[in-house]
Amino acid sequence: MSTFGTLFKVTTYGESHCKSVGCIVDGVPPNMSLTEEDIQPQLSRRRPGQSKLSTPRNEKDRVYIQSGTEFGKTLGTPIGMLVLNENQRPKDYSEMAKYPRPSHADYTYIEKYGIKASSGGGRASARETIGRVAAGAIAEKFLKQANNVEIVAFVSGVGECQLDRSSQNPEFMELLQNITRETVDAAGPIRCPIPDKAEKMTKIVEDYKAQNDSIGGIVTCVVRNVPIGLGEPAFDKLEAMLAHAMLSIPATKGFEIGSGFAGTAIPGSKHNDPFIMKNGHLGTTTNNSGGIQGGISNGENIYFSVAFKSPATISKPQSTATYDGKDGTLEAKGRHDPNVVPRAVPIVEAMTALALADSYLIQKSRESTFNLVH
Amino acid sequence: MSTFGTLFKVTTYGESHCKSVGCIVDGVPPNMSLTEEDIQPQLSRRRPGQSKLSTPRNEKDRVYIQSGTEFGKTLGTPIGMLVLNENQRPKDYSEMAKYPRPSHADYTYIEKYGIKASSGGGRASARETIGRVAAGAIAEKFLKQANNVEIVAFVSGVGECQLDRSSQNPEFMELLQNITRETVDAAGPIRCPIPDKAEKMTKIVEDYKAQNDSIGGIVTCVVRNVPIGLGEPAFDKLEAMLAHAMLSIPATKGFEIGSGFAGTAIPGSKHNDPFIMKNGHLGTTTNNSGGIQGGISNGENIYFSVAFKSPATISKPQSTATYDGKDGTLEAKGRHDPNVVPRAVPIVEAMTALALADSYLIQKSRESTFNLVH
Amino acid sequence: MSTFGTLFKVTTYGESHCKSVGCIVDGVPPNMSLTEEDIQPQLSRRRPGQSKLSTPRNEKDRVYIQSGTEFGKTLGTPIGMLVLNENQRPKDYSEMAKYPRPSHADYTYIEKYGIKASSGGGRASARETIGRVAAGAIAEKFLKQANNVEIVAFVSGVGECQLDRSSQNPEFMELLQNITRETVDAAGPIRCPIPDKAEKMTKIVEDYKAQNDSIGGIVTCVVRNVPIGLGEPAFDKLEAMLAHAMLSIPATKGFEIGSGFAGTAIPGSKHNDPFIMKNGHLGTTTNNSGGIQGGISNGENIYFSVAFKSPATISKPQSTATYDGKDGTLEAKGRHDPNVVPRAVPIVEAMTALALADSYLIQKSRESTFNLVH
Amino acid sequence: MSTFGTLFKVTTYGESHCKSVGCIVDGVPPNMSLTEEDIQPQLSRRRPGQSKLSTPRNEKDRVYIQSGTEFGKTLGTPIGMLVLNENQRPKDYSEMAKYPRPSHADYTYIEKYGIKASSGGGRASARETIGRVAAGAIAEKFLKQANNVEIVAFVSGVGECQLDRSSQNPEFMELLQNITRETVDAAGPIRCPIPDKAEKMTKIVEDYKAQNDSIGGIVTCVVRNVPIGLGEPAFDKLEAMLAHAMLSIPATKGFEIGSGFAGTAIPGSKHNDPFIMKNGHLGTTTNNSGGIQGGISNGENIYFSVAFKSPATISKPQSTATYDGKDGTLEAKGRHDPNVVPRAVPIVEAMTALALADSYLIQKSRESTFNLVH
Repeated sequence: MSTFGTLFKVTTYGESHCKSVGCIVDGVPPNMSLTEEDIQPQLSRRRPGQSKLSTPRNEKDRVYIQSGTEFGKTLGTPIGMLVLNENQRPKDYSEMAKYPRPSHADYTYIEKYGIKASSGGGRASARETIGRVAAGAIAEKFLKQANNVEIVAFVSGVGECQLDRSSQNPEFMELLQNITRETVDAAGPIRCPIPDKAEKMTKIVEDYKAQNDSIGGIVTCVVRNVPIGLGEPAFDKLEAMLAHAMLSIPATKGFEIGSGFAGTAIPGSKHNDPFIMKNGHLGTTTNNSGGIQGGISNGENIYFSVAFKSPATISKPQSTATYDGKDGTLEAKGRHDPNVVPRAVPIVEAMTALALADSYLIQKSRESTFNLVH
Repeated sequence: MSTFGTLFKVTTYGESHCKSVGCIVDGVPPNMSLTEEDIQPQLSRRRPGQSKLSTPRNEKDRVYIQSGTEFGKTLGTPIGMLVLNENQRPKDYSEMAKYPRPSHADYTYIEKYGIKASSGGGRASARETIGRVAAGAIAEKFLKQANNVEIVAFVSGVGECQLDRSSQNPEFMELLQNITRETVDAAGPIRCPIPDKAEKMTKIVEDYKAQNDSIGGIVTCVVRNVPIGLGEPAFDKLEAMLAHAMLSIPATKGFEIGSGFAGTAIPGSKHNDPFIMKNGHLGTTTNNSGGIQGGISNGENIYFSVAFKSPATISKPQSTATYDGKDGTLEAKGRHDPNVVPRAVPIVEAMTALALADSYLIQKSRESTFNLVH
Repeated sequence: MSTFGTLFKVTTYGESHCKSVGCIVDGVPPNMSLTEEDIQPQLSRRRPGQSKLSTPRNEKDRVYIQSGTEFGKTLGTPIGMLVLNENQRPKDYSEMAKYPRPSHADYTYIEKYGIKASSGGGRASARETIGRVAAGAIAEKFLKQANNVEIVAFVSGVGECQLDRSSQNPEFMELLQNITRETVDAAGPIRCPIPDKAEKMTKIVEDYKAQNDSIGGIVTCVVRNVPIGLGEPAFDKLEAMLAHAMLSIPATKGFEIGSGFAGTAIPGSKHNDPFIMKNGHLGTTTNNSGGIQGGISNGENIYFSVAFKSPATISKPQSTATYDGKDGTLEAKGRHDPNVVPRAVPIVEAMTALALADSYLIQKSRESTFNLVH
Repeated sequence: MSTFGTLFKVTTYGESHCKSVGCIVDGVPPNMSLTEEDIQPQLSRRRPGQSKLSTPRNEKDRVYIQSGTEFGKTLGTPIGMLVLNENQRPKDYSEMAKYPRPSHADYTYIEKYGIKASSGGGRASARETIGRVAAGAIAEKFLKQANNVEIVAFVSGVGECQLDRSSQNPEFMELLQNITRETVDAAGPIRCPIPDKAEKMTKIVEDYKAQNDSIGGIVTCVVRNVPIGLGEPAFDKLEAMLAHAMLSIPATKGFEIGSGFAGTAIPGSKHNDPFIMKNGHLGTTTNNSGGIQGGISNGENIYFSVAFKSPATISKPQSTATYDGKDGTLEAKGRHDPNVVPRAVPIVEAMTALALADSYLIQKSRESTFNLVH
């Protein structure tokens, strides 16, 4: 339900119009340095109102740690965190109250719970992801300290403008090897690190915004320095945990890892990643697998892409039925994100970190037994 | 690890070269008629050796219910099931023992566990899926009785030959509305229901087989008559559970639901599914959402596609390193599936049924409280 | 770890000296009326400083709902709650810092986590139970509305003074049938409803307090109107969930249900509870079973007792070793509870409610299938 | 439901009258030597028909490993195990079919599931514990290899005849330090290691048997060489996991650890266990705590006792109602255990091992991070 993970476990609470949103992160290793300063940067990257490409609701989104640290160190106990909601009562949404927004959660929420939240979609709110991003920042810090794990997501597609994400495109593979959050953010608010593509993508978003419409996009994420051995065979393969994590982000419609859908047309003789000795371990010369084989990380870069649909709330008039089933026209008031992928970047990074930190702790437990049994 | 689900819960055991493979299915509703005859058909559809398109290992794969039923009815207690392994000791694999097969689980398995299973990939074995298919058949029977839920998967792509899977292609939407398992199987062993496409796909597989190579493909699955309200907001959105389920199947590289990756280029004004009154409930006129909005089923058809890479084990010689890191050439002995997607069809159906049955029982619990509280 | 429950699920955070303590309650049925006024009374009953029998730290312990309700109704989404800590930095404890308190969590905490929390025992703090009591109040309200379930705990023993808790003592069985929270609290701060026993118990506590010592006691809890059918056979028998819940409360040393330890000496012919028709259902004429048979509630009163040891922190000098292993004498400064059982009463009630609400939702899911399958 | 544990996880299946009973044990460390010979001894100790004190159904209860081992070593993959049922159809029970047996699970089972199993209590069958004992034997072997953990249970009470189990009785503490399974079994079928007590207990059982009646008893269990640091604060305290494990065993009515219920009358100044340096770690001079403080193991012996009621199925005539609510007299046919505690000994040991192995793996994961973070 609202909990993710087995040993590194996050539970979130909150929706758009309540007092605060937040989370409890359980299983954080003790004795790790941690303050709000480690968490705020990703929350600020997630925040709306960062540029004219996103909604102007200027929430400050400042995080407050409630428990689990002392003198700047984690205690090993659960870390409670919260971010205040500033807009606790809906205004812009009120006129739309007769209509369930098409392709939004308004209708399914009311059918599932038998009650209508004033925010419409209830927990299917972008604000729910604040708790995830806060928790993910802790997971990420742990992975960085533990194995120098680097997680970088970026926008690889907006509308028709897409990078060539082929696992057989050497330039893309090189991009994955070198990209950093700094280069992603330096490229401007669209968070695509290829300048001419970034420019085109920005133009696309602006055009749809001008039409009171919206457009979707793709976020790609790479993880470097993942230790070999993460992921559990059968149901909890590492790619299955990542797919679960990604499709739990609002507005996602797809996930592909390594060669992905395009890879289905590459014959085995080209798709197989040959082994070669690298730094005392076997590595592979190509990486169509996306860093995972048989559900278990192989030490190569893990990379995957996530499809985000165009945002459902648009100001453009839409013919659709009211809750009562009467035909009508919905014109959503207020200002809405014409595109969510730049803001989705830190959310993808957070969910990646959460899935990996959990897998890491589970595998560490197993490895700890290697010298104990015979 | 080896358990999937919260209320409808399956736990599997077994790998290629042990005595049996099987599962325990916990949480099956009591008083449902159930015998081996309900389970065997899907196991037979999963079995290798059904045609020249798949590996000739002719395992009989007969299932034996051990517990949880009496006089042909479920007791509500866990259902133990097993299928004997006939080939308990590897032969064909022995010469390959020096090499970890590229893009197979051999290497990651040994790194994860610190021990080499004679089957190489250990649990990353196609035989592990037997327990899933057996459990899925029970889940499916329950969903059918409870809400007339219909789950049909089929091959929508092999290599370069793919159906137009666009959510905006009316023919594809109609196919999803009408397809049955009978029409899927009637189309021949490739399990693609469009005859000319099926013929091309078959040819592609045969060509790669002739070259001792392999090729990947895509399986699409549609679920009809899903009740409104399944799926939990936040981490356990219905699409997240389905993505988890699908990416846990061996050899999968991608998942997309509804409009999927292509949908990212459709603007909101076209992508949004307008509401309309249908049979006393709101329904939608289009279905780019794939039957899920805000993580919750909306009563429309759920459909999604799963990418399967080309099988890793090929007889064609491959330059790759030995476990010791020495360069060499691996020529896999034995006969291997040149393509897995037709056999993946019942596995996709099974995992779909398991994810849905669990979501269904969780939502039924919630609904049962609607008249209790005030 | 810090999460309890499957469908009705609480996760807590916080320790003695952090900003706040609190919890997230997931799975609360939607549309139930709920405000802070439903939760505060049990928190106030749990609060220290209610009488001269307990520690004078006068914390106000006011609860703030953060999410999951709107206009006084639950939304079905997670309910975040917090209570501020007023004493965020330890003072009284500072001089004791050289010594792990005997029979307290100071030493095991530091060994488990490799870090010393300034509060000593970290999460093994009585303040951690605030989140449980807040969550339990919600569970209790749900059970009351759903089935008129009544949960009443009381003090049945302090030191040598104990009620005759035998399942074959008709007076005790009658007490269980009639006792209410009002009669428990009316009996004075010791929360034993038998006046002369209450007086003796009070005297015992005062005597130990005067000696700077402490004493233990027993809390008995009865639950009336439990529906038949709660509890899962095998590992999650209802008594197993209750035992888990009770032994998770700080300072507990034992749990017994129905006839308990004394019942081991009653032969089957007297211990068995004969069936008789009651209000259209089978009931039993005696209740040695404590309302549960085969792990499943049978509709009779559930009752059990919980043993609480004497509090570990006492001002009386104790010969014990420092963290460094040097012999010395610890004299705990500050004022400490000489006895915890009166304050444990609402905690026992809360954990009981949490275990039952979860079992109830799980069974409701099963029952919802009875008319669906055939 | 039928699964216990987080990292070391067992799932069981089976009841009295199905083909087999068994389990899947997931999370067993790889590379540990394991064959049926490691498992059979405890199953044989659990088996009925070992002496005239127990039921004469002479089941052979031979265990067959299905998966997860190769060449006598664990693979790290799930271990499937099964034991065939020989008596698949009930006979003796048939005449009793009109009556739910008092204090047995017959009635609650039918109310919970809405179907009547021919065995009456369904999963509330002693045979369900076979899977637990098999799994426990693996857990125990792991703990023995990992930390030389020793788990020994024994009968400490039958009817009115009980050992003085006080935590302040030096003889009892010494018994806990020295007792072995060999000395337990050497004492005769009653499994009480004090000869004169064993004789009295045997006499008590024989007397009740002669009267077609039954009697209860107490099993005490000690665990030596438990590493410091096991158990999670808050809900999953080590004593809470043990209490859960013990109360999940059929026929149990109570659990107490360390000083237990009697300890509630010992003042803090005597109950607190003073620290002293022992072998480079702090230890305690007394052990009223039972080896756990604040929910975390402290390295001292863990010991606890479990109350078992008198068996519900007796041949002595009982006045009770039929399923239809008509008054009548039930005379159970067949031969039934007049007392279960000797056979419960290996079950208590198994559940102890399962709870500890899981806690151990969880703590090992945490400890593995100590040198990784800063």
